Amino acid sequence: MKGTVLYGPGDIRFEDRETPTITKPTDAVLRLAATCVCGSDLWPYRGLQPITGPTAMGHEYCGFVEEVGSAVKSVKPGQFVVGSFATSDNTCVHCRYGYQSSCVQREFMLRAQAPFLRVPSADGTLVATPGGTPSDDLVPSLLAASDVLGTGWFAADAANVKPGGTVVVVGDGAVGLLGVLSAKQMGAERIIAVSRHDARQKLAREFGATDIVTERGDEGVARIKELTKGVGADSVLECVGTQQSMMQAIQSTRPGGSVSYVGVPHEVELRGEQLFYTHVHLHGGPAPVRRYLPDLIDRILKGTINPGKVFDLTLPLDQVAEGYRAMDERRAIKALLRP
Amino acid sequence: MKGTVLYGPGDIRFEDRETPTITKPTDAVLRLAATCVCGSDLWPYRGLQPITGPTAMGHEYCGFVEEVGSAVKSVKPGQFVVGSFATSDNTCVHCRYGYQSSCVQREFMLRAQAPFLRVPSADGTLVATPGGTPSDDLVPSLLAASDVLGTGWFAADAANVKPGGTVVVVGDGAVGLLGVLSAKQMGAERIIAVSRHDARQKLAREFGATDIVTERGDEGVARIKELTKGVGADSVLECVGTQQSMMQAIQSTRPGGSVSYVGVPHEVELRGEQLFYTHVHLHGGPAPVRRYLPDLIDRILKGTINPGKVFDLTLPLDQVAEGYRAMDERRAIKALLRP
Repeated sequence: MKGTVLYGPGDIRFEDRETPTITKPTDAVLRLAATCVCGSDLWPYRGLQPITGPTAMGHEYCGFVEEVGSAVKSVKPGQFVVGSFATSDNTCVHCRYGYQSSCVQREFMLRAQAPFLRVPSADGTLVATPGGTPSDDLVPSLLAASDVLGTGWFAADAANVKPGGTVVVVGDGAVGLLGVLSAKQMGAERIIAVSRHDARQKLAREFGATDIVTERGDEGVARIKELTKGVGADSVLECVGTQQSMMQAIQSTRPGGSVSYVGVPHEVELRGEQLFYTHVHLHGGPAPVRRYLPDLIDRILKGTINPGKVFDLTLPLDQVAEGYRAMDERRAIKALLRP
Repeated sequence: MKGTVLYGPGDIRFEDRETPTITKPTDAVLRLAATCVCGSDLWPYRGLQPITGPTAMGHEYCGFVEEVGSAVKSVKPGQFVVGSFATSDNTCVHCRYGYQSSCVQREFMLRAQAPFLRVPSADGTLVATPGGTPSDDLVPSLLAASDVLGTGWFAADAANVKPGGTVVVVGDGAVGLLGVLSAKQMGAERIIAVSRHDARQKLAREFGATDIVTERGDEGVARIKELTKGVGADSVLECVGTQQSMMQAIQSTRPGGSVSYVGVPHEVELRGEQLFYTHVHLHGGPAPVRRYLPDLIDRILKGTINPGKVFDLTLPLDQVAEGYRAMDERRAIKALLRP
């Protein structure tokens, strides 16, 4: 088969790779219905995160079980499944505590921008769609559940979004936009999205944003304080991962409010004394998507949510390099790839 | 009257100062039954926190209302009252959210190591003991409620201590020891205290500690991981305020667990990426003692708790300099001063 490999900044190739096979009894191999490019893929693509050599890319996936190892019990060939970007056995002490993305057997998925994918810890990682193969128009939303929706949902959950609450979402990438959708689902009354881009603002409003703030940094904080009568927001979702976005998030939060951060922070340093006087709750990390998957799949199958709207570009998988380019140049929010 | 003034590192003087009077209609003036030296007073005493000139010291207090301003309604002369180290109107949006130590009218108290004290926002800051003047043997515990008990309680609350939980307390100062007491009151099953000092270990055990760890830094983390079967603690209370203690606290916590920090962090920097992968909840700041005061006073008056045991040295107020010395040299956990 052919798969996606990053060779260096801007150098994405779709080239021959070995077709994956079962290597452990707990593995499954999937034939993917769809995969995609993640905002986090852009960090190494832009040369802002080092790679040690040619790197097989992709960690978002859904599709059909092709083959399972001898120990796999909960999924079987032919089923349509969605899995998290982080594998989990879903039985260890951390999984049972709800933090499957800190599973003692965790592996961060790679190699998913390809037609076939080996998934370790298949029983604890994959969730089959109830009712058999979903209709094709639901595939983008199910794919979103694999990472960006699950991560946006965790962002809202970790920021303690409550019915009636005031929420700020810093970042208008797919995760931020789905953070808006998640906050809306959790009953937030007011959702302030920070975005400068027309198409993203439009989607944010469609997902439930009530206000748009275009300012960043201190000006963004001032604008949010103005919108919240000087109080600050109950919950702030930081969905970027830079020093500026983190500080904007923290300073936009009311004392006693909550900040979540769900993208890997890049060169972010928090000064203890500064954080101390803000009185915020801070929680984040790699989203435990597996915790939310059954519920998210249910909402998608029922048509309650349509997170697949974040994919505003669909390409055949062999044009993956254009998917990276379009996202890098912000011509696309998120590129879906069809093998 | 005479009061306590810090002139520079190690230079505490008990000298003539103006007797405080009502300056605003919302003020009260108290005649103190007791005051004390705080661990946080040692930072400037040791020259580790700059002062801009002679500084009137002390922020923990309880005693009798001597006089009130014309707008004060909830306390009256003759009553015995306890107040927080941070003043609050207890009516603003932050107070109503439970964060009285971020009150829009907050002032951090000073000048309490003296026989008389002016307290701003008296209605929202002071709580009178129900049932009249308490017996003298309860004064140390009521004084503790003013800061160290309230702060230890907030540490346990902010670290999300729950019945049956496993708790670590980093720091064996009065706040850490009362964090142990608070965790016990909240139903923690296992309480691991980090301490190297015999007298403090003894008091920690008396307050409810089930295990003592003497190691610090990475060794301390390893020991705590060993005690928790490799998992880490549900709740960790950071009661020191240094980089080492903060990192020990964070790394001793299970993924999804909670870390609180309640002492002003001194030159603490948290790396975003490192924090991200720990999956901890982080919450802290100046303790909203006022939120807890009625409950804490009730527990003290009923004899449920005896936090006053942290005072292992009692001095006449004019010997305040010896109180600082004894705490600096770790001869005393906490020095109570009687005017």
